[in-house]
Order: sequence, then C-alpha cells, then structure tokens
Amino acid sequence: MSHIYIVSPSSAVRDKPAFRRGVARLKALGHAVELDPAARTHHQRFAGDDETRLAALARAAASGADVVLISRGGYGLTRLLERLPYKAIARSIAQGCRWVGLSDFTALQLALLAKTGATTWAGPAVGEDFGAEVEADGSPDMIMEACFDDLLEGHGEGAGWRLPAADLQAQPALADWMTPEATLWGGNLSVLCSLVGTPYLPAVQGGILFVEDVGEHPYRVERMFTQLLHAGVLGQQKAIVLGAFSGYKLVPGYDRGFGMPAVVSWLRSQLKVPVLTGLPFGHVPTKVLLPVGQTVRLVVQGRDAMLLWAHGHDHDQED
Amino acid sequence: MSHIYIVSPSSAVRDKPAFRRGVARLKALGHAVELDPAARTHHQRFAGDDETRLAALARAAASGADVVLISRGGYGLTRLLERLPYKAIARSIAQGCRWVGLSDFTALQLALLAKTGATTWAGPAVGEDFGAEVEADGSPDMIMEACFDDLLEGHGEGAGWRLPAADLQAQPALADWMTPEATLWGGNLSVLCSLVGTPYLPAVQGGILFVEDVGEHPYRVERMFTQLLHAGVLGQQKAIVLGAFSGYKLVPGYDRGFGMPAVVSWLRSQLKVPVLTGLPFGHVPTKVLLPVGQTVRLVVQGRDAMLLWAHGHDHDQED
Repeated sequence: MSHIYIVSPSSAVRDKPAFRRGVARLKALGHAVELDPAARTHHQRFAGDDETRLAALARAAASGADVVLISRGGYGLTRLLERLPYKAIARSIAQGCRWVGLSDFTALQLALLAKTGATTWAGPAVGEDFGAEVEADGSPDMIMEACFDDLLEGHGEGAGWRLPAADLQAQPALADWMTPEATLWGGNLSVLCSLVGTPYLPAVQGGILFVEDVGEHPYRVERMFTQLLHAGVLGQQKAIVLGAFSGYKLVPGYDRGFGMPAVVSWLRSQLKVPVLTGLPFGHVPTKVLLPVGQTVRLVVQGRDAMLLWAHGHDHDQED
Repeated sequence: MSHIYIVSPSSAVRDKPAFRRGVARLKALGHAVELDPAARTHHQRFAGDDETRLAALARAAASGADVVLISRGGYGLTRLLERLPYKAIARSIAQGCRWVGLSDFTALQLALLAKTGATTWAGPAVGEDFGAEVEADGSPDMIMEACFDDLLEGHGEGAGWRLPAADLQAQPALADWMTPEATLWGGNLSVLCSLVGTPYLPAVQGGILFVEDVGEHPYRVERMFTQLLHAGVLGQQKAIVLGAFSGYKLVPGYDRGFGMPAVVSWLRSQLKVPVLTGLPFGHVPTKVLLPVGQTVRLVVQGRDAMLLWAHGHDHDQED
C-alpha cells in the first residue's frame, strides 16, 4: 500500500467520471489516496489560477506521499516555470517521493531536471489512465498498471519493447547495439520544444531523448524536430526514441505520402545517431514508466529494445 | 509596371483556381509576371523536393525581378534553412528586388535577417491574397493592393491602424507615445518560435516585434509567448505588436473565459513594454506590408498607431 497524492497543476478536470474512476481504481488497488484540496478547482481553462496551482504543488511536495500523481495534463505549467517550488519538489524526491506524469507535466519535469537534477517519472495520469476503461473487463491498461506497480514496489529495472522491422531495415547496425550509460530525458515534444532557448531546458549531453505527441500533424512534428536539430539538441544525444504520435489527421489531397514515416526517414537522414520507434509511451493507454533524468543504458538485441536502469530508488548506491 | 517573379518555396499549390486568379490579377494590374518553372511542382505536401525548392529560390534571386512573391505559405522552409541561398537573395535585395511573403516564409525572412541583415517584406501571397475574391466586385482586398502598389512605386512611408479602445484602457500611457528608432521584425508566431534557440533567429535588441498566427488555440499562443518571454526575447523589445490571430476554435466548456483577451492581459502583466493589438496583418484579407529588418519608429497618437519608415529603397541614403 502506498500513499498517493493527487494534484492538478495544469488544466481543470473536466471529465469528472474518468477522474472519479481513476481515484476509485487507485483505492481498489489498495492505496491510500489523498486528493489535494484544489485538485478539482477551475479558473478559466486551468485547474485554479496561478497562485492556486503553485500552492497545490507546494502541498504535494510537503505531503510526505510515496507518489505524486497528476489528475491530468492539458496546459498551465509553462507559465508557472519562473515560480515553481523546485527546491521543495527536489527535497521530496530525495526523501523517496516519486513524481509521475506526462504531457504538460513535461514542463515541470524538464525544468526540475535543469534546475536541480532531480529524477521524475514519465508515466500515467489519474483521469486518462487509471480512469480509462480499456480492457475487456472495464479496467485500465494492464501493462501500465504493472509498470506502475513495479515503480511502487521498487522492482522496476527497465522497460522493453519490440522494434518495428522497418527500424532495423533502415538502420541494420541497430540489431546488436547498445549505448554507454546516458541520461534519459524527454517527454511531450511540443512542451519540450516550448522550452528551447529558455533556462528550463536541461542541457543534456550524450543522453537518450524520448518524445511523444498527440494531435500534432506530422509537418508540425517535423518542424519541431528541425528546431531541436538546428538548436544542436539532437546531435548531442546517443539515441532518439520515439513514443506514440497519435491523434492527428492527414489530409490526403494535400499530404500525398507525407506522414510520420516520411518524417522519421527525414530525421534519420539528418542524424548520425539511431532513431528508434515504437516506445510504448505517449497519449495511448499502454505506457511504460520512464525515469526522466536518470542514468540508463539502451540495449538492442534483434528487434528487442530495452531501456535499463538501476534497481529502485533505495538501491541507487549499490549498483 | 513591375517585373514580378513568383516562386513556391513551401507547400504545393493545391487551390489552383485561386493561384490562377492571383496571377491574372497581377497581370491585370499591368505587371510582367514570371512564373518560376517549379512554381506548380509538388512532392508529398511540398512544392517540390528540397533540391527543387532550393533551386527555385536561387532562380528567383537571379531573376532580376522588381519583386519576388510566393505562391503560398504552408510548410517547407524550416527544413531548408541550412542550405538557403542567403548571399544570392541578399545580393538581389541590394540590387533593388523586394521579397514579399508571410506565414512559412517567416522562416526565410528571419534567417536571412540573422545571416545577412537584409530587409524583406511581410505581405501578401499570390493565391491567398491576389487570388482572393473578397470585395463586392470579386477583386482582392483594396487596402492590401494599395499597400502593395505603394511598395512598387516606392511611396510607402509607413502603416497605420486604429488601436482598440481596450489597448488604451489597459495602457493609458500609450495615448501619446513613440519609440526611438528600432528594428521592425517578426511574422508568423509559430514559425518564429520554431527558430528560438537556433542560429536562424535574429538577435534583435531594442526592436519592435510584430506577430500573427492562424489556427492556433489561445493556450498555444500563450505558450509561444511564454517561450519568447523566458528566452529573453520579449523583454529586449521596445514594443510588441499583435496582428490577427484567426482561425482557431474555443471550446466553451473547457476554456470558460480563456481566450485571446486573457492571453493579451497575461502578456501585459509579464512585460514592461507596451503590447499593441489590431495591426492589420496576418492570415486575413486586409493586410499592410511591413519591412522586416528595417529601422522604423512606432508612434501612437490617441487611438492612431503608426509604424513609420524611410521613404523607398532608393531614398535610404537621403533620410
């Protein structure tokens, strides 16, 4: 049983049934769930005005919880970046609290990494993930829940997935390949790109960058990769790992063969480092949890890719 | 009569009737219109592959035309930025050619300014503007055409517009105000932000920044302004001038009072310099032409705002 603290740092909770289901599911898994008093607040499109959301994050940092989860993503953290309680969040992480989230939460995760070096987890949100009814029995995604359980139990040692055959056809040397130890970082591509040129983008050299996005046409994804390329970010990494790019619509009469495969091909033509795809992460039900800011190794054997990290938080010193 | 060269550096021409109307309109105005041989080419969503579009820009630079116009915007220039014929374009401008465009063309304009200091013009495209049937008699926008004519004749000395009353209510000191001489720069906000952190964003200090966008929800506009704010770009300007933000949809149950006015209010709360709105420029029929990279002065008298620049290209030395 873990103490889970739920906070709303971004958009207001609008899908209240999904949020309720998510909270109920976490309780049904045996956890002690604490809702931040402002978790259901709203101001315009935000989950409370700026002061409300800043105070909520400070309460989460002081909660003594094992895990902080977000109710949902949306938008709202970038405009708080100058005033986030970085030190309090980093202190809570040093004391064993895991902060988990995705999408707009990427802004907090990357800024925290830039400011303090603290590790957070890219992973599920309460409403969209624990509140989703995606399995045949109406429960959330099994793989997501298993990965979340690994995090809580301190058993997680990595995340693996099957590479598309096309990845190896385009990059034959990948078939038996691994990176040296490298900092894993990334998250939502749009949010990450909105930090380029600011003090909130961590300057990760020799890292492994993972990105995902939702509702972004491939031409916009390509434009964002171009920015990271021209800003020197991509060339400094050991590998680029693509999660799910979902929820966009091609326009057949306009795009005519331009789509995500064309973007990935173009990206590979611009880079000397491998571009891997198929990472189960993003705005999709099946998602692994990934430690943002932690030292990992990326290993590929045949079509099996694995991101491997040290045991649990408690064992960092033993490895 | 001017020699107008039309080039397609971005997306493929899909609205062929509009493009034909635009070409016909320019001819009807008495101009000698030269179409680049690749103006109607297409490859995927682009107006030709990268080599084709680079060659087209080189031909435009060598054309000896009075004006280079783009068929349309879309997407395609950011991925060419490492290989644009900057010197040839700057040379053509030094010889009196005006390069005019908007939207995706912003990438070329700002990169050219960063690399060479050359002035280009933010202004109409052939299909969307000269091919538009917006007046009662089916002709293009009269103000746009008058401004274009001013450019051709070398009569343009500035652009004026009426400020919304709300601008002065929020910023009473604006009512009788002017900037010192300052570099005018800007264009499409999304394209501009995609250059942040790269060598293609000009480092304009003490400038006047104008921006517009289309199809971007206000939360995305705010996120882009936040990036420019945190990157130190906004604070270095003398004024921020907003053109049209058009073509987005609010989601009433989600946004609840969050919209462009909220974004503008928030932006003003973050800045010491004025934020003016209502500039007739963007993805709207009525648009002025603006010299990107030129020294201008911004003058406000009551609700009248004016961007004033030196006479024509030929008179730069006399002022």
